[in-house]
Amino acid sequence: MSNLDTKFAKLGVDSAPGQELRQKIDDERLKGETLGGTPVDFSHGDVNAFPPIPKSLDAFIEGFEEGAEQAYTEYRGRQPIRESLAERLAAFTGASIDSERELIFTPGTQGALFLAMGSCIGAGDKVAVVEPDYFANRKLVEFFDGQLAPIKMNYSGASTGSGLDLDALEASFRDGVSLFVFSNPNNPTGVIYSNEEIEAIAKLANQYGVTVIADELYSRQIFDDREYTHLRGLPQANQANLVTIIGPSKTESLSGFRLGAAIGSPEIIDRMEKLQAIVSLRAAGYCQAALNLWFAEPDGWMSDRIARHQSIRDELLAVLNSAEGFEVRAPEGGSYLFPQIPPISLSIADFCKALRLQAAVSVTPGTEFGPQFTRSFRVNFSQDHAAAVAAMQRIVQVVDRYRQ
Amino acid sequence: MSNLDTKFAKLGVDSAPGQELRQKIDDERLKGETLGGTPVDFSHGDVNAFPPIPKSLDAFIEGFEEGAEQAYTEYRGRQPIRESLAERLAAFTGASIDSERELIFTPGTQGALFLAMGSCIGAGDKVAVVEPDYFANRKLVEFFDGQLAPIKMNYSGASTGSGLDLDALEASFRDGVSLFVFSNPNNPTGVIYSNEEIEAIAKLANQYGVTVIADELYSRQIFDDREYTHLRGLPQANQANLVTIIGPSKTESLSGFRLGAAIGSPEIIDRMEKLQAIVSLRAAGYCQAALNLWFAEPDGWMSDRIARHQSIRDELLAVLNSAEGFEVRAPEGGSYLFPQIPPISLSIADFCKALRLQAAVSVTPGTEFGPQFTRSFRVNFSQDHAAAVAAMQRIVQVVDRYRQ
Repeated sequence: MSNLDTKFAKLGVDSAPGQELRQKIDDERLKGETLGGTPVDFSHGDVNAFPPIPKSLDAFIEGFEEGAEQAYTEYRGRQPIRESLAERLAAFTGASIDSERELIFTPGTQGALFLAMGSCIGAGDKVAVVEPDYFANRKLVEFFDGQLAPIKMNYSGASTGSGLDLDALEASFRDGVSLFVFSNPNNPTGVIYSNEEIEAIAKLANQYGVTVIADELYSRQIFDDREYTHLRGLPQANQANLVTIIGPSKTESLSGFRLGAAIGSPEIIDRMEKLQAIVSLRAAGYCQAALNLWFAEPDGWMSDRIARHQSIRDELLAVLNSAEGFEVRAPEGGSYLFPQIPPISLSIADFCKALRLQAAVSVTPGTEFGPQFTRSFRVNFSQDHAAAVAAMQRIVQVVDRYRQ
Repeated sequence: MSNLDTKFAKLGVDSAPGQELRQKIDDERLKGETLGGTPVDFSHGDVNAFPPIPKSLDAFIEGFEEGAEQAYTEYRGRQPIRESLAERLAAFTGASIDSERELIFTPGTQGALFLAMGSCIGAGDKVAVVEPDYFANRKLVEFFDGQLAPIKMNYSGASTGSGLDLDALEASFRDGVSLFVFSNPNNPTGVIYSNEEIEAIAKLANQYGVTVIADELYSRQIFDDREYTHLRGLPQANQANLVTIIGPSKTESLSGFRLGAAIGSPEIIDRMEKLQAIVSLRAAGYCQAALNLWFAEPDGWMSDRIARHQSIRDELLAVLNSAEGFEVRAPEGGSYLFPQIPPISLSIADFCKALRLQAAVSVTPGTEFGPQFTRSFRVNFSQDHAAAVAAMQRIVQVVDRYRQ
């Protein structure tokens, strides 16, 4: 194979969320009948159950009707929107933002992650990524010809904090890592990094001159009033070597608008804009108008949404904890659960296919988040409450069929 | 500088269309007073003068109201929309399209170009690009660590066809070029490749096993009923090594929706989807709904639009041809004019700044399209007719001030 063939062979998407339609299924090994019930696609949130921020369609319509000014924004996003959002994002994250130089809008938070990593990774650069963490992190390191330095997170062993192996992180930094990427709350486990962990990351990054990309996509949806520490809000954070990415696709359900944002040093944001100029020019102009509503939702709307997710989380945990042999840590933020199943006779990939065929349930296999997660799967529980609980009960039933 | 610094130093965007807001201006060398008149931004089309396809806002609203199905499409785009569009694109381009395997939707045609080039260029690969041609072509080759093989197009010397140097193209293929990228109609000159030229490109690509990316973004807007040849429509075209990109951002004015499309072999489209999964996931879901209207516009809408552009073209050509020392070839398709100005005392970059400061006119400097175009500039004449003509007269006046 050529280098390019090898690179694309590593970039599989058939198990990626939303791509299940493309899987071909061999159903010879399936046991038992199909289970009835409302189909649930746990691979991503359901915007029918949790609709977008109120008036977001109106915002798009206003943008469309405004015409050229909203259609052709600067590549980094329309200036007046950046200006007002910079203020709200600064208040949220605890550190000021120069709207002209330190903020860029992107096509989804995926776009922000791609541009940030593309701006920071040269061929051969060592990049530390957490396992488990968002699957695209590893794929992007490979795409940009970086070298992966995986850092374990003992999420199930820790009672507070993420359980990130800080000694291994420091060892990787000492060994020449130039970039560290992590999501907080963690995707897929939903654990939150403790204040001490974030302080330790800031200190190590300063000490070894490492750039950090903090993916805070889910940082507005924190349960049980837990403390959340924004790395960029720490006094000791080195703003020159830090990118924070965030977007309205998850808790705010604006995924269909494809909007994201990155906050970073002027040098990194400049690079990201240069890259965006050849990748996609800009986030869709009319869609950007919906950012005017972000961090400006109606009173009580976010807290109600968080409470409803917390309630779904609690009931799904009850289902899992009453089933034999499942292990799961209660997520502290975000909409993901990452349970481990007991030993069964199917691979995790075949188990996920069996769920779709026999239980009308889509989940994401754990191996998307690190090669060692061969008995885990991820669900996004931003779903209709009752349908999600029934679907989780069906998952337990399917496990029962294949127990070893 | 590190390799990454060098790479980004080449990716300048300050002179790119729409980015003029970010230029800092030194106005000490400017002569004369500011000229009055309606400001015209020739760097891109004006969607206020030529609004989007009728009912495109309604299509977005329907998509939004449909909810989850339209928000979370497959990465390559929603299947029913691909299905109906594949048929219409096949009829337009003259060769069949398997909607399941040979078509992908992208965030703008820029997105299609990025994904296509990223799927075909490995480090060190030689890539032939036309000069002049769309500026991102060269930047993308550099970003993907390819080697540029520039091929001259003698557009002003040719009376029919593009004037592409086919001998130089063959020599580059013989020398190991693996990919050839070109736009037709050419951006920035608006010339159309003759049937003979397209046949020659197909033949050379077959002979030397070269992959071709044909950027047909402007192929629906052809003037004077000229003949236009789609490379993929030729019987001798090698569909396995061909990507055609196209989108509704230009003639159809849907740029604010950020939509594009690529047609290619199943292998290349698979790669493009894998790359899209880590770049931006998908074209904005709700926006994709507007693709239902593409190539299905109301009767007479396109022909009226083409006639109105042809009429603006003719009047702008009259202004340029009556001014002393300007050279311009009449564009045969698209919305671009690429005039050459007589010798003046300003660099082309300073001339473009002078136009903005003294004439309220934005244009794109020729050097964006090839380093040798130091006396040319590009205008997108998809503008209000009267305002565009007045603005071109102001351009001539500014040239007069600095003549040598």
